[in-house]
Amino acid sequence: MSHIKNLIPKTINPDLQKERNAAEFSVQEFAAWWQGGQEKLDTKRTVENAIFSDLEDGYGLNHEYMSHEDVYNSAVKKAAEAALKLKALQKKLNPGGNNIWPQSLFNVHSHGLFPANHPLATHITMFVDVIKGQGTAEQVEKWGKAAENCNIIGTYAQTELAHGTNVRGIQTRADFDPQTDEFVLNTPNLEAYKWWPGGLGHTANHAMVVAQLYIDDVHRGIQMFIVPVRHADTHLPLPGVDIGEIGKKLGMAAVNQGFLGLNNVRIPRTNMLMKYAKVERDGSFKASPASRVNYLTMVYTRCLIVNLNSTLLLEAATIATRYSAVRRQSPIEADQPEPQIIDHVTQRLKLFPEIATGMAYHLAAEYMWELYDQTVLDANNGKFDRLPDMHILSCALKVLCTTDSCAGIERLRLSTGGHGYLTAANLSNIYGNAVAAYTYEGENTVLLLQIGRALVKAWSNFIADKPVSSSYAYFESSKQKKFPKWDNSWETIIKALQFTATHKTRIAFENLAERIASGQSQAVAANNTGIEFTRAADLHGRQFVCQIFVEQITGPKAQKRSASLNKVLENILELFLVQTVLNNLSDILRFINLTDADLRSLQKRLELSLEKLRPNAVAICDGFDFHDRVLNSVLGSYDGNVYARLFDSAKRSTMNQKPVQKSFESYLKPLMKANL
Amino acid sequence: MSHIKNLIPKTINPDLQKERNAAEFSVQEFAAWWQGGQEKLDTKRTVENAIFSDLEDGYGLNHEYMSHEDVYNSAVKKAAEAALKLKALQKKLNPGGNNIWPQSLFNVHSHGLFPANHPLATHITMFVDVIKGQGTAEQVEKWGKAAENCNIIGTYAQTELAHGTNVRGIQTRADFDPQTDEFVLNTPNLEAYKWWPGGLGHTANHAMVVAQLYIDDVHRGIQMFIVPVRHADTHLPLPGVDIGEIGKKLGMAAVNQGFLGLNNVRIPRTNMLMKYAKVERDGSFKASPASRVNYLTMVYTRCLIVNLNSTLLLEAATIATRYSAVRRQSPIEADQPEPQIIDHVTQRLKLFPEIATGMAYHLAAEYMWELYDQTVLDANNGKFDRLPDMHILSCALKVLCTTDSCAGIERLRLSTGGHGYLTAANLSNIYGNAVAAYTYEGENTVLLLQIGRALVKAWSNFIADKPVSSSYAYFESSKQKKFPKWDNSWETIIKALQFTATHKTRIAFENLAERIASGQSQAVAANNTGIEFTRAADLHGRQFVCQIFVEQITGPKAQKRSASLNKVLENILELFLVQTVLNNLSDILRFINLTDADLRSLQKRLELSLEKLRPNAVAICDGFDFHDRVLNSVLGSYDGNVYARLFDSAKRSTMNQKPVQKSFESYLKPLMKANL
Repeated sequence: MSHIKNLIPKTINPDLQKERNAAEFSVQEFAAWWQGGQEKLDTKRTVENAIFSDLEDGYGLNHEYMSHEDVYNSAVKKAAEAALKLKALQKKLNPGGNNIWPQSLFNVHSHGLFPANHPLATHITMFVDVIKGQGTAEQVEKWGKAAENCNIIGTYAQTELAHGTNVRGIQTRADFDPQTDEFVLNTPNLEAYKWWPGGLGHTANHAMVVAQLYIDDVHRGIQMFIVPVRHADTHLPLPGVDIGEIGKKLGMAAVNQGFLGLNNVRIPRTNMLMKYAKVERDGSFKASPASRVNYLTMVYTRCLIVNLNSTLLLEAATIATRYSAVRRQSPIEADQPEPQIIDHVTQRLKLFPEIATGMAYHLAAEYMWELYDQTVLDANNGKFDRLPDMHILSCALKVLCTTDSCAGIERLRLSTGGHGYLTAANLSNIYGNAVAAYTYEGENTVLLLQIGRALVKAWSNFIADKPVSSSYAYFESSKQKKFPKWDNSWETIIKALQFTATHKTRIAFENLAERIASGQSQAVAANNTGIEFTRAADLHGRQFVCQIFVEQITGPKAQKRSASLNKVLENILELFLVQTVLNNLSDILRFINLTDADLRSLQKRLELSLEKLRPNAVAICDGFDFHDRVLNSVLGSYDGNVYARLFDSAKRSTMNQKPVQKSFESYLKPLMKANL
Repeated sequence: MSHIKNLIPKTINPDLQKERNAAEFSVQEFAAWWQGGQEKLDTKRTVENAIFSDLEDGYGLNHEYMSHEDVYNSAVKKAAEAALKLKALQKKLNPGGNNIWPQSLFNVHSHGLFPANHPLATHITMFVDVIKGQGTAEQVEKWGKAAENCNIIGTYAQTELAHGTNVRGIQTRADFDPQTDEFVLNTPNLEAYKWWPGGLGHTANHAMVVAQLYIDDVHRGIQMFIVPVRHADTHLPLPGVDIGEIGKKLGMAAVNQGFLGLNNVRIPRTNMLMKYAKVERDGSFKASPASRVNYLTMVYTRCLIVNLNSTLLLEAATIATRYSAVRRQSPIEADQPEPQIIDHVTQRLKLFPEIATGMAYHLAAEYMWELYDQTVLDANNGKFDRLPDMHILSCALKVLCTTDSCAGIERLRLSTGGHGYLTAANLSNIYGNAVAAYTYEGENTVLLLQIGRALVKAWSNFIADKPVSSSYAYFESSKQKKFPKWDNSWETIIKALQFTATHKTRIAFENLAERIASGQSQAVAANNTGIEFTRAADLHGRQFVCQIFVEQITGPKAQKRSASLNKVLENILELFLVQTVLNNLSDILRFINLTDADLRSLQKRLELSLEKLRPNAVAICDGFDFHDRVLNSVLGSYDGNVYARLFDSAKRSTMNQKPVQKSFESYLKPLMKANL
């Protein structure tokens, strides 16, 4: 649709410019800090200029108008073209690095390049990584390189139609045939069809199939097998392979998730990943010693998710905040012009806490990366004691971040009123990308229950005077009969959250114990105490996020930032902490006696922090440095030409390329003549 | 795609059958009660058989795979065909009625006929209704009939690109030209383009344009004008008319919302709706006396919304509940088979409160309809004193129902795990239809602020010993210094909510007064107290919904139901009330001193009501009597053949009609050969 006249002025909306002029800190400093240094910021911008400058006008919305099939085929085209371009760019700008190729296929740049996502994501992340992590040296040499170079395209096939969360329940079966030195793979029934792997539908020609291994009909646990599924030249499904896509989804239209049924499909023995578990030529089996290593992979993936979802939340916050500075509606004083809607206090409450939340999780992820690197070092030295703690904290972070970011993105969309319902606002698309993470890599409720069980176990150790690991050290606070005096400090807020989390854990433990005492089995009692497990787990996570946020803003790193920037950041922190208290008052008030004056003071602090954020909100969003192509939103572009962009996007609708649609002559006109 | 072999067995899933067998009440009785009597239930089923029996397999999902343009043209085809069929059916089954034609174009049947909605909805509801309500007898005769018979297709064009909530701010202008006895309509700038009217894009050939009337440059308020926008034969836009669709949206893909710019478009003077305001031939103007009448229209529309959104919530609850009875995952006892996921207590908490919530709002709407009919009678007798109260309550009901139903639908979608992310589950589509109501007919926050202002005004009357209307009578409770003793009765719960709402209102009033005392203008102070206004308004609405729910279940109507049905309904009521308390504890605990024992007892009541609902949940959902075509969900069909239906829907994906997609040869294969 490149013939359409560009309707968008080259000027900045004056209301937005006014906001920028009034900011009380240096956006440049913020942006450099946020990206981890000026150099990283510069590189990011260079890459963005290179990859976004040749996208045509309206590119980011085209997918919304296409058929499902066309969305897929366009995404393959763009992904294949981008792969070549990105690889070349990587060589040019940062040879040997991976920040452009392949990372631009799944980091924030990909939001601009692939607004409907794309079918190579699972190949680049899971398939390549799993071979590298779980393959022998020969397997990495053979398969890993071919995969990295895209000579083969793979996917990771674990989940089945009827088996997701409970991985042990998967039914796909691999039987070792000693005569031919092969595995024979089978899908025993419809429920065991692989379901969900990205790119499996029509893109991948290999699948990393997770299956129950049997040798001589003896079960040998769950193993991974590289299975060719399509012919290398014709791309036709191979014999015994029933393959296709699973149908359209709420989001990620181009990811091409697929199903896979296997009927006596044979692969060489050496196609099983054997870095840890091994099957020898004679059928002898060596089990994997490395169950703890899997924890690290899970922690890693969850940090990635927190990074992704906090970024998506901040994209949405940027769009809604800029729009709220441009949109004028509903006079405050009857005789005055309509104000920028950001001047309505209720609107601020919809916007600013989401900015704070996105920043809190982003900084928490940063903290977890540092911890992760340390833990990997320890693990390489045979020290694994940090792992269980880190695993539980990463679960909590994943749950809270995905829950809060999705709810936040939708609140932000609703804060933009009717126009947010248009896909051109891109808020619905951002939501679609974000909300999948609620379910994948550990469904949120399942993870909360896991955390809850860990908490209760730690509590039972604690009351038996056994040692508990550092993340439960705050249980100590339960030794005070009453919460010490409430004051307005951040320390008190953290302590209040910890005091509450402790007592929620205690109550969950007591109710569990009571149920067991009344004759329920441990398992049944745990199920019946599930609701309380999840609440305790939620609070455990929240005190942790608040703690890290305080540390990241007021800790030693603050010295590297200017006083003016720190002042703004401290106000964001204040907002986040006060909101966390207010959102959890129903639990806090149960254990801590806040007076009416305390509660009025919290409300005042909330209102004051919103007030203080008001002049800086647009500039803070500028500081996240999202490229217009990444935001891909008529409401959120840097220039704030909201109405011109709305109109421009409407004019580009495929339907508007004809004055009259074909159904008029065939159906509408006959109806009008029919005299019903 | 009718050539695809039907993969679905004709049997009922045994887990679902087991649930039905175990129900403790008569589903038949429930269904008849729910539909307002056996006769209505029978008619509903007859209509459904007639209109759904000839839909092809897979019909409900086809739209998900089409291009945006094809979605539109198919919807026009189906709507035009359906109009003829429904009209004939109406004549046959219930001559003179309107329950089939035109109601099936927008009631629950339309969810099955038009899963992407359709472009005649605004015509049938708004355009026809507004002419009938605001037109003179001659106008009703001329335009109303033509519209009802679909000889002309219209839309209602009020909202502008930059003017939504603040109707007075709209800028489209109609100038009376006494020389030609015409109005001249103009869109003064881009921001004044009409934006959002359903069917305006390519469907309607008339628009009811809401514009600022000027006579001799004197402003005469906002009036409505019938403006032809497309040629009756060619359907081409008329001279001076810039028209098109506004682009794709998060949902309602086939509604064909449009934009409209008018450049010196002339219409006869008699095209202004003149039942109330009038412009005579000589340009003399008579203003409308009827501002209070508008209240009734708004109340009516909001009852419709509550009806629609509670229905959508219950559709989602039915889908998720049936799926939860079929899906098995995650053992409770390690050595036992995986249970139905409905046996996980945390899953029950995701499902059952939504059933209760949907029922509460549905019954509240029913109550409001009765009140509405009474109020119309009163109004016809010149009595308008009920109106303001009813207006505020209908606002509250609209806000709470749309807020809770949307959040509930999304929670239910998430409760179905990964498969809920597939559009074949239909939960995302239901959400898309439901969430639009959050914004239209009064954006929810705007309405809450309006309610909050009314509350504070009533409070100021109350403390000045002036009379307040009956819906604020509970302010009396503030005369008790402390809340009387907490017990486990429903009456106490209602009183606690009222006590809390009263004190939230008092605090909002006090903070407003304090701000005014500190020198802020009334308007600025009100804006600054906005957050507290909305919280008080929310609670005012909640105590009302709880009150009606108790009345509808335990009041005189209970005598018409069997004891076994009443027992089930009372448990649903118990769940709803306990959940309402638990969800609002942060406010309640501020004013009412609940002991630890009280809180433990509430938690037990919650768990017990979930437990009691367990054996009846599937049967209750059956009792809503949603046709499979209406649910349109592979997860929620009556037979529970979830996996077969998932697979069937995947096989129907347009992409699966070819083994290899065209992008393979052009892009994917070259990439694989490129040795990146």
